[in-house]
Amino acid sequence: MTSINALVTTTTKDNTMTMKFHGVIPPVVTPLTTDGDLDVPSYQKLIDRLIDQGVDGLFVLGSTSEVAFFDDEMRGRVLAEAKRIIDGRVPLLAGVIDTETLRVIRHIRQAEDIGVDAVVATAPFYAITGPTEIENHFRALHEATALPLFVYDIPVCVHVKVSVDLMMKLGREGVIAGCKDSSADDVSFRRLALANRAAGSPLALFTGHEVVVDGAFMSGADGVVPGLANVDATNYVAMYKAYREGDWERVRTEQDKAAELMEIVFAPQGVVGPAAGVGAFKTALQLLGVIETNTMTVPMPTLAGDNVERVAEVLRRVGELA
Amino acid sequence: MTSINALVTTTTKDNTMTMKFHGVIPPVVTPLTTDGDLDVPSYQKLIDRLIDQGVDGLFVLGSTSEVAFFDDEMRGRVLAEAKRIIDGRVPLLAGVIDTETLRVIRHIRQAEDIGVDAVVATAPFYAITGPTEIENHFRALHEATALPLFVYDIPVCVHVKVSVDLMMKLGREGVIAGCKDSSADDVSFRRLALANRAAGSPLALFTGHEVVVDGAFMSGADGVVPGLANVDATNYVAMYKAYREGDWERVRTEQDKAAELMEIVFAPQGVVGPAAGVGAFKTALQLLGVIETNTMTVPMPTLAGDNVERVAEVLRRVGELA
Amino acid sequence: MTSINALVTTTTKDNTMTMKFHGVIPPVVTPLTTDGDLDVPSYQKLIDRLIDQGVDGLFVLGSTSEVAFFDDEMRGRVLAEAKRIIDGRVPLLAGVIDTETLRVIRHIRQAEDIGVDAVVATAPFYAITGPTEIENHFRALHEATALPLFVYDIPVCVHVKVSVDLMMKLGREGVIAGCKDSSADDVSFRRLALANRAAGSPLALFTGHEVVVDGAFMSGADGVVPGLANVDATNYVAMYKAYREGDWERVRTEQDKAAELMEIVFAPQGVVGPAAGVGAFKTALQLLGVIETNTMTVPMPTLAGDNVERVAEVLRRVGELA
Amino acid sequence: MTSINALVTTTTKDNTMTMKFHGVIPPVVTPLTTDGDLDVPSYQKLIDRLIDQGVDGLFVLGSTSEVAFFDDEMRGRVLAEAKRIIDGRVPLLAGVIDTETLRVIRHIRQAEDIGVDAVVATAPFYAITGPTEIENHFRALHEATALPLFVYDIPVCVHVKVSVDLMMKLGREGVIAGCKDSSADDVSFRRLALANRAAGSPLALFTGHEVVVDGAFMSGADGVVPGLANVDATNYVAMYKAYREGDWERVRTEQDKAAELMEIVFAPQGVVGPAAGVGAFKTALQLLGVIETNTMTVPMPTLAGDNVERVAEVLRRVGELA
Repeated sequence: MTSINALVTTTTKDNTMTMKFHGVIPPVVTPLTTDGDLDVPSYQKLIDRLIDQGVDGLFVLGSTSEVAFFDDEMRGRVLAEAKRIIDGRVPLLAGVIDTETLRVIRHIRQAEDIGVDAVVATAPFYAITGPTEIENHFRALHEATALPLFVYDIPVCVHVKVSVDLMMKLGREGVIAGCKDSSADDVSFRRLALANRAAGSPLALFTGHEVVVDGAFMSGADGVVPGLANVDATNYVAMYKAYREGDWERVRTEQDKAAELMEIVFAPQGVVGPAAGVGAFKTALQLLGVIETNTMTVPMPTLAGDNVERVAEVLRRVGELA
Repeated sequence: MTSINALVTTTTKDNTMTMKFHGVIPPVVTPLTTDGDLDVPSYQKLIDRLIDQGVDGLFVLGSTSEVAFFDDEMRGRVLAEAKRIIDGRVPLLAGVIDTETLRVIRHIRQAEDIGVDAVVATAPFYAITGPTEIENHFRALHEATALPLFVYDIPVCVHVKVSVDLMMKLGREGVIAGCKDSSADDVSFRRLALANRAAGSPLALFTGHEVVVDGAFMSGADGVVPGLANVDATNYVAMYKAYREGDWERVRTEQDKAAELMEIVFAPQGVVGPAAGVGAFKTALQLLGVIETNTMTVPMPTLAGDNVERVAEVLRRVGELA
Repeated sequence: MTSINALVTTTTKDNTMTMKFHGVIPPVVTPLTTDGDLDVPSYQKLIDRLIDQGVDGLFVLGSTSEVAFFDDEMRGRVLAEAKRIIDGRVPLLAGVIDTETLRVIRHIRQAEDIGVDAVVATAPFYAITGPTEIENHFRALHEATALPLFVYDIPVCVHVKVSVDLMMKLGREGVIAGCKDSSADDVSFRRLALANRAAGSPLALFTGHEVVVDGAFMSGADGVVPGLANVDATNYVAMYKAYREGDWERVRTEQDKAAELMEIVFAPQGVVGPAAGVGAFKTALQLLGVIETNTMTVPMPTLAGDNVERVAEVLRRVGELA
Repeated sequence: MTSINALVTTTTKDNTMTMKFHGVIPPVVTPLTTDGDLDVPSYQKLIDRLIDQGVDGLFVLGSTSEVAFFDDEMRGRVLAEAKRIIDGRVPLLAGVIDTETLRVIRHIRQAEDIGVDAVVATAPFYAITGPTEIENHFRALHEATALPLFVYDIPVCVHVKVSVDLMMKLGREGVIAGCKDSSADDVSFRRLALANRAAGSPLALFTGHEVVVDGAFMSGADGVVPGLANVDATNYVAMYKAYREGDWERVRTEQDKAAELMEIVFAPQGVVGPAAGVGAFKTALQLLGVIETNTMTVPMPTLAGDNVERVAEVLRRVGELA
């Protein structure tokens, strides 16, 4: 075993690929057959539809993809199929989510073998973690790969927040290329955006919160990673275009429309977390005829009965469903 | 891929092996070389010493073993070496810690192949989880193996608590054989102990909290899983013996001695979580000449300088070190 | 004692005064003498300056006013002096913060006697509270007064969040006139704004987060309650004006300027909570010559030494101080 | 106004009265009439019964007394009636619960006027608080009164924990006379007990957790403040006596009996916090004929219907009710 501990140093590397990451980069849901296997034809339809709707990239094996529920073999399969289907039309970002550094590096190797354009890693989790561990972690990941490295800042899952100061330090030194902010902390995001601009914008900043993208754009975000775009990416594509053109009224209108559609995730009753959120995306996609089933991976319950009807009701209210 | 979703049913199985689990079952630290590899000679010395001190079993690949920091290959090596060294002298329990059901099942397979006596699994983590997911999870794990299954109740890491009601339901149906309670919720543990006794004691109940084992014994616990026993298991072995003999004053005296030694984990400054706790165990073991280095796995810092001296000071105060 | 329990019914009342609450309504800091008493001359200068800068109202006895630190006598004095100084130039909203319903009603009586224009109450705190208690609480407060009642949604202090559904239910029935959202949950705020609009805008919605007011305006907020405006309200007044005129680029520019000034609250080291935040506001006001001292109420430490210099440094960087 | 800020110094005072506080000191529930007023005859019966059952003191105006729900006038009345009824038979400890220092001091004055034997104060709450504030707070309270001061360590209500180090520092300097530990952190309690003993036992240590008093006694606690004792104090009195006599089997048996009775607080459905816990105590007392009604203060719901029956069922199961 090569020593990984030795890798925790502060060398800086070139991140010239960074600039291509911007705009709308949905985290892709993973369509499953009823017995929990990957449904490749549905996956093909879903990805083709997203690219047709004009997205700027695709993020595979994030929380929305049920990454934490899949074993390594399934993760590899999902990523390889995405790579094959996308076929270079847009950049492919791969989640490399796992508890701690050495486990994440294994996923980075898998992603490199498949040929992705960037990797996205969370702060370490499960064990209680201080700022030293978080910094060591991202430095070790960066040392382990030539791929652009994005921070996936998601305290609701990993129970720590990557501070603005650490994010900027890692950005200025070229350790990370950007972040997907799913922290639900818009105050921190604004501070990060200001600090990033003051430092010459070393980081590409993405928000993961579907209903407040306009606020993130006001902050100067480079893009958005909206799970809701699986259901319909057109609002987000239009919103991003309007943002680039300075048409803020359009940004706001598109955001309001997307926020109304987002009510599908609050519609199900008696379910929580991805079983509700990703479950609603899958249920909507099934109702829209894009994917075959709304099956969720064990141990999550799959939305059924009244909960399917509640999602359908929202879709009808906003005109997505007749 | 065989459908795992189909496994989430409520079949009950026989758990007749359960009764052999009781007493002092330390979670074994994993000695490392300075470059982060497994230090097999130190591991041999540590395990032999624990068995010589009279422990009733060994728990490998729990939090104290740095399980979340190791990749699968390392996990397999640690477990296989433990199996080889123990050589049937005491039962071997294996942690199968991972985010969600399908990933945990992969670790169960590895543990089965190596030949362990029981597996220990946490509630699912990373994704937000409700009671349905927790119940489905343990049922699916039980369906996947004939080994006794223990619940590792550790909210500080997985951010959910397994309720007394669910624990008892799974116990009465034979889904789980017992639990290691690291919930720091002694009120809940008392309620669990009472409910378990009322139900005919289907569960073997272990506490994971080193300094309140006497209270757990007053509650009727079957045993203890003390990380501190790596440094010295004699207090715990004596405490358990006194408990079985009804010698409560001895229980209390031994507990006080162990609690004084436990101050090593509060001694280090500027470090948190396992870097402090497991770090203190390893540092003490190194100072006592049991293992070669106190190296921790990336991204954790290894205790050094004044922090080593702070641990040594506690060891001298309680007479472990001259 | 009149029975208050009997008051917990669902009667609706008219809230026609609501419409006058909009725009920039700063929560006013309470200037103190070095021995902790109210510094009336400084208070006069501060309030006059805020009104001169064009604010639309003033919120007294909120968290920024150190309300939780004052005894009832001091609270009465602060409110009465504010009433006297404002002298009808802008509306006066009074915080009636206390643990539970009957205590809050006492503060409402005091506020009524002094003659305020609206009262602002948090969800109940200290005791563990469910949704039933929160709903009963606001209904009882509304029954107890003819004044418009605002919800102060501040989970960081009261450790519960008022849900969108409850907020809308109370709004539609006329129980509450609006809310000050200090929940740091912009997703929830967007949902509230959409639901409020769909219901005919029964609620006046204010954000309490100084650096993301532009996002709140994109959501359709009616105004802002910015603690930072104590130091300088001109950015917020200009931002609100630009918002009403649809000049989003101006909104964004003003917001960025305000966000840069807000760095004063992150500048102090070794202090937390209002000792840092309100302490920074007071220190800045003292440096700007508006108030005499930056004294904080016991048990908070007052910013001193390097921490004063850190605040001054930010003020100089943004051009507030020469 | 006298300057309180000036009081925050470190003077030590004599706490020779401390030694009389030990044993079973129940936090007394406050019986109410159906319209929410104090029910004096029921209060008399309840207090007389507790003293007859052999308690060593009474704690009035703690969480169990619904202190946070009463206005100051009601608080004064409850305390004065308790003083009158107790009539010197046992020591009277008064809760002086409020958000911050100056407000707590007002309650201390009221308690002094009524003539209590000790005051019990929490760490400051509502505002975000660091260790400096907590230390300043207790020092200022001590400076303000000659009465013995107890720390009420209750993170579930005030959302901070008083650290072992601070508790010992304040104890060694005579600032505090002891603590009621309702922190649900038995590990910390053990560490506190050991540190206290090593320092010559300056603190009187009480646990507030009804079902793990035996563990607290193993740690060396001086007594217990059990809300459940309102329903029946005999188990706790017997447990404390057995503890003093070293009869640990009796301690354990009495604890198990008390723990079974404690299930009344987990029996109600659809209610949380004191509405469930204190509500269950009151409901049991009403069923046992000790108090007239089980009315809870607004905004809490009073237990009714099936929830009353669920409490009765537990009472019958353990033989308290025929």
